[in-house]
Amino acid sequence: MSPNYPARRAKLRRALKKAELKVDGLIISGLANVRYLTGFTGDSAWLFLSLTNCVLLSDTRYETQLADECSGLDVEIRDSGSTINDLAVKVIARARSKRVGFEADHTTVAQHNWLSEKITTAMLVATSGLVERLREVKDQWEQTQIRAAIEYAQRGIGVVRSSLRSDQTETEIRYLLEAAMRSFGATGTGFEPIVGVGSTSALPHAHAGKRCVGEHPVLLIDWGASTESGYRSDLTRVFITGKPTKQMELVYNTVLAAQQAAIKAIRPGAKCADVDKIARGLIERAGFGKYFGHGLGHGFGLEIHESVRVSPISEREFEAGMVVTMEPGVYLPGKFGVRIEDDILVTDDGNEVLSNLEREFDQAIVPILV
Amino acid sequence: MSPNYPARRAKLRRALKKAELKVDGLIISGLANVRYLTGFTGDSAWLFLSLTNCVLLSDTRYETQLADECSGLDVEIRDSGSTINDLAVKVIARARSKRVGFEADHTTVAQHNWLSEKITTAMLVATSGLVERLREVKDQWEQTQIRAAIEYAQRGIGVVRSSLRSDQTETEIRYLLEAAMRSFGATGTGFEPIVGVGSTSALPHAHAGKRCVGEHPVLLIDWGASTESGYRSDLTRVFITGKPTKQMELVYNTVLAAQQAAIKAIRPGAKCADVDKIARGLIERAGFGKYFGHGLGHGFGLEIHESVRVSPISEREFEAGMVVTMEPGVYLPGKFGVRIEDDILVTDDGNEVLSNLEREFDQAIVPILV
Repeated sequence: MSPNYPARRAKLRRALKKAELKVDGLIISGLANVRYLTGFTGDSAWLFLSLTNCVLLSDTRYETQLADECSGLDVEIRDSGSTINDLAVKVIARARSKRVGFEADHTTVAQHNWLSEKITTAMLVATSGLVERLREVKDQWEQTQIRAAIEYAQRGIGVVRSSLRSDQTETEIRYLLEAAMRSFGATGTGFEPIVGVGSTSALPHAHAGKRCVGEHPVLLIDWGASTESGYRSDLTRVFITGKPTKQMELVYNTVLAAQQAAIKAIRPGAKCADVDKIARGLIERAGFGKYFGHGLGHGFGLEIHESVRVSPISEREFEAGMVVTMEPGVYLPGKFGVRIEDDILVTDDGNEVLSNLEREFDQAIVPILV
Repeated sequence: MSPNYPARRAKLRRALKKAELKVDGLIISGLANVRYLTGFTGDSAWLFLSLTNCVLLSDTRYETQLADECSGLDVEIRDSGSTINDLAVKVIARARSKRVGFEADHTTVAQHNWLSEKITTAMLVATSGLVERLREVKDQWEQTQIRAAIEYAQRGIGVVRSSLRSDQTETEIRYLLEAAMRSFGATGTGFEPIVGVGSTSALPHAHAGKRCVGEHPVLLIDWGASTESGYRSDLTRVFITGKPTKQMELVYNTVLAAQQAAIKAIRPGAKCADVDKIARGLIERAGFGKYFGHGLGHGFGLEIHESVRVSPISEREFEAGMVVTMEPGVYLPGKFGVRIEDDILVTDDGNEVLSNLEREFDQAIVPILV
């Protein structure tokens, strides 16, 4: 099985035809969007797509790589004497497009100003989320990639869990985790892992630092793996490495109950904001509302944060094929934090929890070597 | 020694006053720019700076981290029910700014449209490179960080060089290199390392793959380390692991001569395009001109590619305190490629080559274990 890039581009063309924008071409400058539509893995490329044309714009550093990864695709290559903007102007003029869409979320004001000035043959029209919308629903091949990324992450954390020591620092755990995931086939972490002991676990986005596991009973790890194909996983677990307090147990079970209740509500047609509300309401009623400041979840895939967002301000509904995190948390400043995060696939009649690590409080208790 | 963030912000205020734009405030949304001016290491923040105000905008995930990293700075925190745009509108109104600059290179068209609509009390003015210009010249503290990043990278490649084996894959080398740099104190690689054997070395931005060292005498590694403070290094070496051909020696010595001639010309006031021309001319005269398609070098620091660019289209001159790569290359498609890259500090009376790994052809020959 391999990704069907022409089919993805055909879908985008249908979306372009249907869109009210009446554009007859689109410049795609979001790098993950370019990769999704072509398979190109370099770090500099735009794609120009019209109803009849499809041209990848890049530079000489990638000439051979493009021939390998995107055979069959028209390619325009710039040398060190010109810019990608110059190529875009040329390609648009040649395609005789009259109304060219651009990605307003991935085009800077500076790029737009430059293009507006130089493109005299077509009008530029802002578009938003056309490719991201396609990427929300993962095809079978993508689901396989995400399942692999979850498998690498789960096997990696197993190594970490089984080798916890009281003198181990957050940073050592971070490096061990990455090495372990690589040994199972991951290319690395899907994002900078968060490893926090004690009060550091109360920082939802802490950098791993020098605190040792033995300093405090709470250890929070938020991590994921990436596959060679660029897909990621995103999980969080809390390990209780010493004697837990009643408060730890209460916070843990509140977060877990919020997560489980929210997951139950995920099905096609359910509103993202409503699912967020279920978890948030439960945490509020337990008295921890002000300690849960972030959204409940988000899509992921080629990027670690993708559409859809599951938050109080989301206006979207779940659709079959979406893959999202469910990650409520409660963070007691100066004390500790608990977040439990799993990866959920929306199915035709409900959902499937793709990650299957232990999540009960008793199972989170891990005796450590001193 | 630690970075003097207030001094950096004072410099920016002076630049704002001098700029012809007549803005009385600036929204800084480039994340590396925010870090440079405040020390904040999270991945979501804007800074609003006026002649009298300085406010960091972020979200609840970073509340405690902000107090740690940016003590003394005014902070505005959004919760999950609002966006960073909302915060910006509020802060600008409160500061009574009338002409607010924004970073045209780091603001998307979508963000700009939103802000233009909501900000009724001030006019938005596009700015470009104000903070990047300050970042071009590295202060003493930054130079120390870059020297450390180079040291980690050099020690790391020493481990790799001394443990090369014919059955080792490009990917194995990549992982070993990262682990070795971490063992010396790096937080990781400064960017995805390029490790290419044989024809893969002819792809200037190849991903490390499954080719084995023993398959071809040419092994190219382009790598760097990152420090905890976020600074990077960027180096490239070619190792000849088998019997070299005359062509390999010719290409290698051409690239090395081009690099050395270019480095000699680096001093305050020298034009970047002229230095590029020295290396490019030498490669052209040797008959390899069409095999060198990328720029000669670039600044680096908090990001791996920063201003200034050393290329044929650069309009800039070198200034004391700039740190740039010098990395000519010749890539023979399907055969092999050679790039030699060092990191150069521009000094008051010339330059200092900060990296000091062996670079003569004879020294590049490394016998491998079979």
